Amino acid sequence: MKIGFIGTGLMGQGMAKCLIKEGHTLKVYNRTPEKTSTLVEAGAVAASSIADVAEGQEVVISMLGGDEALKEVVLGEHGLIASLASNSIHMMCGTHGVDVIREVVAAHGFAGQIAVAAPVLGRPDVAAAGKLAVITGGPREAIERCGSVFEAISRRTFNGGEDQIAATSMKIANNFLLGCAIEAMGEGFSLVRKYGVAPADFLEMLTDGIFSSPAYNIYGEIIAQEDYDRVGLTTILGLKDANLALSAAEAVQVPLPSGNVWRDRLIGAIAHGDGEKDWAVVAREQARSSGLE
Amino acid sequence: MKIGFIGTGLMGQGMAKCLIKEGHTLKVYNRTPEKTSTLVEAGAVAASSIADVAEGQEVVISMLGGDEALKEVVLGEHGLIASLASNSIHMMCGTHGVDVIREVVAAHGFAGQIAVAAPVLGRPDVAAAGKLAVITGGPREAIERCGSVFEAISRRTFNGGEDQIAATSMKIANNFLLGCAIEAMGEGFSLVRKYGVAPADFLEMLTDGIFSSPAYNIYGEIIAQEDYDRVGLTTILGLKDANLALSAAEAVQVPLPSGNVWRDRLIGAIAHGDGEKDWAVVAREQARSSGLE
Amino acid sequence: MKIGFIGTGLMGQGMAKCLIKEGHTLKVYNRTPEKTSTLVEAGAVAASSIADVAEGQEVVISMLGGDEALKEVVLGEHGLIASLASNSIHMMCGTHGVDVIREVVAAHGFAGQIAVAAPVLGRPDVAAAGKLAVITGGPREAIERCGSVFEAISRRTFNGGEDQIAATSMKIANNFLLGCAIEAMGEGFSLVRKYGVAPADFLEMLTDGIFSSPAYNIYGEIIAQEDYDRVGLTTILGLKDANLALSAAEAVQVPLPSGNVWRDRLIGAIAHGDGEKDWAVVAREQARSSGLE
Amino acid sequence: MKIGFIGTGLMGQGMAKCLIKEGHTLKVYNRTPEKTSTLVEAGAVAASSIADVAEGQEVVISMLGGDEALKEVVLGEHGLIASLASNSIHMMCGTHGVDVIREVVAAHGFAGQIAVAAPVLGRPDVAAAGKLAVITGGPREAIERCGSVFEAISRRTFNGGEDQIAATSMKIANNFLLGCAIEAMGEGFSLVRKYGVAPADFLEMLTDGIFSSPAYNIYGEIIAQEDYDRVGLTTILGLKDANLALSAAEAVQVPLPSGNVWRDRLIGAIAHGDGEKDWAVVAREQARSSGLE
Repeated sequence: MKIGFIGTGLMGQGMAKCLIKEGHTLKVYNRTPEKTSTLVEAGAVAASSIADVAEGQEVVISMLGGDEALKEVVLGEHGLIASLASNSIHMMCGTHGVDVIREVVAAHGFAGQIAVAAPVLGRPDVAAAGKLAVITGGPREAIERCGSVFEAISRRTFNGGEDQIAATSMKIANNFLLGCAIEAMGEGFSLVRKYGVAPADFLEMLTDGIFSSPAYNIYGEIIAQEDYDRVGLTTILGLKDANLALSAAEAVQVPLPSGNVWRDRLIGAIAHGDGEKDWAVVAREQARSSGLE
Repeated sequence: MKIGFIGTGLMGQGMAKCLIKEGHTLKVYNRTPEKTSTLVEAGAVAASSIADVAEGQEVVISMLGGDEALKEVVLGEHGLIASLASNSIHMMCGTHGVDVIREVVAAHGFAGQIAVAAPVLGRPDVAAAGKLAVITGGPREAIERCGSVFEAISRRTFNGGEDQIAATSMKIANNFLLGCAIEAMGEGFSLVRKYGVAPADFLEMLTDGIFSSPAYNIYGEIIAQEDYDRVGLTTILGLKDANLALSAAEAVQVPLPSGNVWRDRLIGAIAHGDGEKDWAVVAREQARSSGLE
Repeated sequence: MKIGFIGTGLMGQGMAKCLIKEGHTLKVYNRTPEKTSTLVEAGAVAASSIADVAEGQEVVISMLGGDEALKEVVLGEHGLIASLASNSIHMMCGTHGVDVIREVVAAHGFAGQIAVAAPVLGRPDVAAAGKLAVITGGPREAIERCGSVFEAISRRTFNGGEDQIAATSMKIANNFLLGCAIEAMGEGFSLVRKYGVAPADFLEMLTDGIFSSPAYNIYGEIIAQEDYDRVGLTTILGLKDANLALSAAEAVQVPLPSGNVWRDRLIGAIAHGDGEKDWAVVAREQARSSGLE
Repeated sequence: MKIGFIGTGLMGQGMAKCLIKEGHTLKVYNRTPEKTSTLVEAGAVAASSIADVAEGQEVVISMLGGDEALKEVVLGEHGLIASLASNSIHMMCGTHGVDVIREVVAAHGFAGQIAVAAPVLGRPDVAAAGKLAVITGGPREAIERCGSVFEAISRRTFNGGEDQIAATSMKIANNFLLGCAIEAMGEGFSLVRKYGVAPADFLEMLTDGIFSSPAYNIYGEIIAQEDYDRVGLTTILGLKDANLALSAAEAVQVPLPSGNVWRDRLIGAIAHGDGEKDWAVVAREQARSSGLE
């Protein structure tokens, strides 16, 4: 397939490489051009602009780190609305808010283009291995046209239905559940530490019991080892995720009390200088509030 | 081994049968004598009193549903303090509060008896299969003497150290984490439902993603199917667990904000008449507060 | 003084009339021109545009209901930046977020104009009586120049210092405290109602005890009488205030756990159809969650 | 009236002196006998035991600091149940939980005695001045018989109805509202401090605005001045009050989310060594969690 790819950060690079490996023809664009060099070495063509990366493509994939970036790419001067061919697809793989997705989907619709929400689950190493999971949301026909893309980058797709906003809410809820699980683990570790339990013993229970799963195993280990410099997602970006969840929930009148607790610990961690640590550092913030540090 | 067994409810029956099957000599006692009949058929001897069940045993196991019951069994007139032989072991398998465990451990110590905390993880079907996990807390030598008991009832033990209270806190923290996970799932399901996502689709993401584990699979399914009559643990007993966690945490000055959220939903569920439903019904209470029911 | 006045809603009308009564020369502007008619009858001149209302004034007062409206008035084409004379004052009396105030203050600074934050405390009837309180924030010299304005509209000023953003935070914190007090009252009323206490009896304790103050007297009465159609501020606008507080707090890394509780009840109330009721209806939402309705 | 008085701590002494001053005949008892000496000097007779203080009295007043103390005084060997004359009144002025009040009321009923709940509002200096407020709960006829007692110790009574438990819940709710107000103030002060507002300026707004009342004036001042050594109620006793509220609410299925927030800050304050400071120190705990200390 002829694919344009916008956003070659850590996640994007892994995904783009998988697409090249599977034989797709890739043109890549990044605001910071140097970040496309390894992809060019791997066989991609570097684009000089959004218009350039979009021209003549069947699909343009964006993997962007924020809502402002997405709006700029789509709605900005010389953005996708202006440059993507009619009936072509913009597949949005980043984690975005429901409001911006609604706005972008509407704009693509007016322009005769097709928006597909395809937020991905997994971290950079998973992306590099082509083993992400993808939540797909959009017109069934468009999702089908993207089949070979999903095969290249993921181990499987989850059905987010025909509504891009619904699929977006699933990804937001996924991150929300993860954040709440980390927060609860932090509370649990503080509790047992105060009773003299070795964190490694509590971790073993988590990882060989009813919680045994990547979410608990990975973050339980980070918390047990207090290894917050092993950064998967920073606390500041975690706070962005928490706010996405709380905003999405407010928009449909859903209170998220566990989300509030999680957000407060993220804010507290940032207040104590841990904004650039892994977001599991909420466990340290919890420990602080328990008089443990 | 010569074993006395007190408390033959659903969990206790499964555990006791496993002990009989493995060749242990079992005397059993329950406040309601009828509840020992199937065990007697399986080869156990029925005891007429606490004193009777304790007499001459190397180990007496209790599997009781509340702190008051444990205090009565141990500290009551003609209780274990009065009837258990010196240097014999009282293995406590129920989920109890840290305060009552501290009190009971001290009393056994004064009486020259040995208390072992051995709270179990797993539900009745797991108990019947001899596949529980056991958190062991107590003197190393006593834990070793109980080795064949643990082999009979469990797939493995988790190390809770030499302190019975510490082991108790691990079990309490385990239930706390589970309750918080259920609460967060409830919030997540409400969120995506409001965006039109089919609960089954969200469930699939939970069960084949980073959360894939018994905790999320079992409770995610109950919530997705709103199958709250499939009762593993009632909401009223769930509230007991929440209070155990919050009390244990207060005693060592640990705030548990996620625990508060969970407890409030349990209370709200009871207020709406769902006290005897499965404790996953906090998800329905969350839905109510979101205007979904 | 020669004064331009933008925003003649309920609050603005009361304030503008007081200014006229005290002899100030008033030009008034509202997006919906009809809303200036009673002021014109009282002696004000109607302006046809922002530029018109700003031209030649010493002070332009804005009393606007939202951050977007303020941005439009100040930064929009033909807005105050383009039309207000150098060294003239824009006095902002609405309740705005810290971000928009920061942006507007900076823009006025670049334009050689002076921004004063002067958020007011009080409801429409208090405004009509000229008895508001004003929190003043901005350059001391500018605040002094506005002295006769403050005298006309308020019973007193509170010192918010020379920083417009600080003064803004005081107003936000005032509304936050009020919202939290209402939420706590709601919880308290639910509690005692369940014990059979007559709401009027509990209200009497509030209004003749240590809480006796307008905040508790007014909102206690609304709650006791469940008189949520007596709307001072709608729940939807209350949610705006809650979000202003939580955003302002996040920006400086302050968790506001009581604010979360309050916000969740506002969201729940809206979910149950009470968005246009008085924001004290969080007490009804609390009652719902307690199984009382 | 012939009155027995049990519990001559700070509060009790002030109340007892007022009774003497108004001409009542007082016999006084305290576990620590020295604490009755100033009252004896003032004209009271010292009792040597509960039985002694109760013998022949029309009314026995208890002003005790905890539920255990009340149970001991009433239900203990040689306690009031055994020694108070039939049809005499036990007026309970302390702050107690609903459970213990229910138990004590039932016991007095079986014994043919009359229990009156009369929890008082106010601090030691207010008690000394005879200006407390009293919430009265119990049989109307008994409340009337106590009229001269209420006149001596209080500026007024609040009607808690004929149900001692309902009256108790009013007092608990009063302390709950006060605690939540203090907690919210703490959050508000942290917020404005981060924006550079002088605490004294924020305090002035509280004390001359819609919150102007003893609750906000007294505790606002303590917080603004960070004067937590001026102890009215310790944080540890504040936590007792928080737990009374949460237990009373759980018993009737009322979630108290603001109460959870307040309780968590009390726990955090104790974790940081502030257990013996004034309970307004939750504001410092809030500041800590905001990175301010």
